[in-house]
Amino acid sequence: DSTLKVFTLNSNIELAQEIAKHIGIDLGKSSVTSFSDGEIQINIEESIRGSEVYIIQSTSDPVNEHLMELLIMIDALKRASAKTINVVIPYYGYARQDRKARAREPITAKLVANLLETAGATRLITIDLHATQIQGFFDIPVDQLLGVPILANYFEDKKLEDIVVVSPDHGGVTRARKLADRLKTPIAIIDKRRPRPNVVEVMNIVGNIEGKTAILIDDIIDTAGTITLAANALVENGAKEVYACCTHPVLSGPAIERIQNSRIKELVVTNTIVLPEEKRTDKVTQLSVAPLLGEAIIRVHEQLSVSKLFD
Amino acid sequence: DSTLKVFTLNSNIELAQEIAKHIGIDLGKSSVTSFSDGEIQINIEESIRGSEVYIIQSTSDPVNEHLMELLIMIDALKRASAKTINVVIPYYGYARQDRKARAREPITAKLVANLLETAGATRLITIDLHATQIQGFFDIPVDQLLGVPILANYFEDKKLEDIVVVSPDHGGVTRARKLADRLKTPIAIIDKRRPRPNVVEVMNIVGNIEGKTAILIDDIIDTAGTITLAANALVENGAKEVYACCTHPVLSGPAIERIQNSRIKELVVTNTIVLPEEKRTDKVTQLSVAPLLGEAIIRVHEQLSVSKLFD
Ligand SMILES: Nc1ncnc2c1ncn2[C@@H]1O[C@H](COP(=O)(O)O)[C@@H](O)[C@H]1O
Ligand SMILES: Nc1ncnc2c1ncn2[C@@H]1O[C@H](COP(=O)(O)O)[C@@H](O)[C@H]1O
Repeated sequence: DSTLKVFTLNSNIELAQEIAKHIGIDLGKSSVTSFSDGEIQINIEESIRGSEVYIIQSTSDPVNEHLMELLIMIDALKRASAKTINVVIPYYGYARQDRKARAREPITAKLVANLLETAGATRLITIDLHATQIQGFFDIPVDQLLGVPILANYFEDKKLEDIVVVSPDHGGVTRARKLADRLKTPIAIIDKRRPRPNVVEVMNIVGNIEGKTAILIDDIIDTAGTITLAANALVENGAKEVYACCTHPVLSGPAIERIQNSRIKELVVTNTIVLPEEKRTDKVTQLSVAPLLGEAIIRVHEQLSVSKLFD
Repeated sequence: DSTLKVFTLNSNIELAQEIAKHIGIDLGKSSVTSFSDGEIQINIEESIRGSEVYIIQSTSDPVNEHLMELLIMIDALKRASAKTINVVIPYYGYARQDRKARAREPITAKLVANLLETAGATRLITIDLHATQIQGFFDIPVDQLLGVPILANYFEDKKLEDIVVVSPDHGGVTRARKLADRLKTPIAIIDKRRPRPNVVEVMNIVGNIEGKTAILIDDIIDTAGTITLAANALVENGAKEVYACCTHPVLSGPAIERIQNSRIKELVVTNTIVLPEEKRTDKVTQLSVAPLLGEAIIRVHEQLSVSKLFD
């Protein structure tokens, strides 16, 4: 039974502190800084020989910086004789580059998997991979946790009435179904289609939303184009009010402005990605994944099944 | 006999164009841009199936960005059935993290080697690795080219008299010897030492520099602390004038200010690293490595020895 140690890198320091607190330990002592020319310098300031080490790092923007911090940290831990190196990546960046959609495209989500294994990772713990297939890009064990229960609990506590959970596109119906099951509500789907090339898309709504409180759900909200168009279409078609939620608030470019100007009443997200001050508007609620990740780390360390966390 | 293609990424576009011109071909069509959230997007816009591909990219500042561009490009080329993927890294970043100097340090130069091979690189062509041992970090063929002949030619053309080539520290004596052999001059060494802990270093000069034109040589000039202190010590100890030269002008932080305020008359560097406008002062001369790399690519493609380029 080896020592459990949790280290943080620079992407999610507060989340890592919360996780350590949940587990009941202090974060491992280390520093991640840059040399004058921008090269990353990592110092691990305590022995980790024979320890089971967990590193908390999302590969969020700046993704290349965060990924290299993680790879260099794994390398340092490996050379310092860690027993296991468990990477906890709450938000797995580059997940949308998961297939060749056109000729000569990279499959960067697979490249990243290979890089992590090459550096020396022995396990991945992550939340809501954009495509579940990414688990198969790894030859090491992958524990994928789900954001839906956290989002569902929040909406349950709100005691909203006459809810319909809405998927903003065809790809997200399974996820919407999961949230609807928890909330015991029906679902609807936004069925975008382009009648002819170069003609504006039609937002067709499949399912009954008339007079209902709609909750839109997605895994990632990036520039927020899809979700805000969907919200507006729902209101125009008779929904009483519209909430939106997602696990990973990428919220890049025009996202916050779009959300502020949209018919979305409240956007509920988790802290897999840190929101800088300017993205924390009155419309945005952020829920913590620290208890989920803390529990997962404890269970993995005790060699118990992580799937229990979904019940 | 397969087609030779040269692609550039974003670190050294002008150098790549010069190399392509030297070889007598056009650069391969591709674009490297960013998605809204900072993830790198690469498009290869011509078929490379069965081709022998050369990618030009220095892992200079921003090093993590440049390295990820390179890894993703290699991944895309591999999946698009390139016959060979030859990475041309004029300046190999992270080379100074080439050993565990203290406990629990990463060996990032080795990590980078593993990442390049994992992505799919089949050969490395590079110039003046900070430590020649880094060649052994790779299991693929490595061709290391030398900057000294380019620097030597420049100083020969200047027709300076009564030269002494000076190494700014013990580690650089072999390099100084190479330049001195070309210029048929003696060498000297700056022999820094600290008489007792917490006492200022003494700049002892080994060799005769009195009344001579000194040429300081290093592989990398980063913050320029060492080289400017050395230059000033040479003048204070009787050198007539001091030139400095290096292959890789990292020139980070206070470097340019230090050089401008130092006794260095002229700093001669190569273009393995692009100098932004503010670093191109009247004291700095930049020489091109394009003919060297162009010739190396031609020779590798024709399966000829590259070591001939050093004679
Ligand atoms: N970081 C990114 N930002 C926006 N689009 C992306 C990003 N990465 C990949 N994509 C594109 O998103 C599409 C895949 O998304 P999806 O269809 O939701 O799986 C592909 O066409 C990719 O080219
Ligand atoms: N990017 C960098 N900038 C400054 N120092 C570095 C950098 N990378 C590594 N080092 C340090 O440089 C030393 C190695 O340089 P050297 O003795 O010249 O081989 C090690 O102590 C490293 O910690």
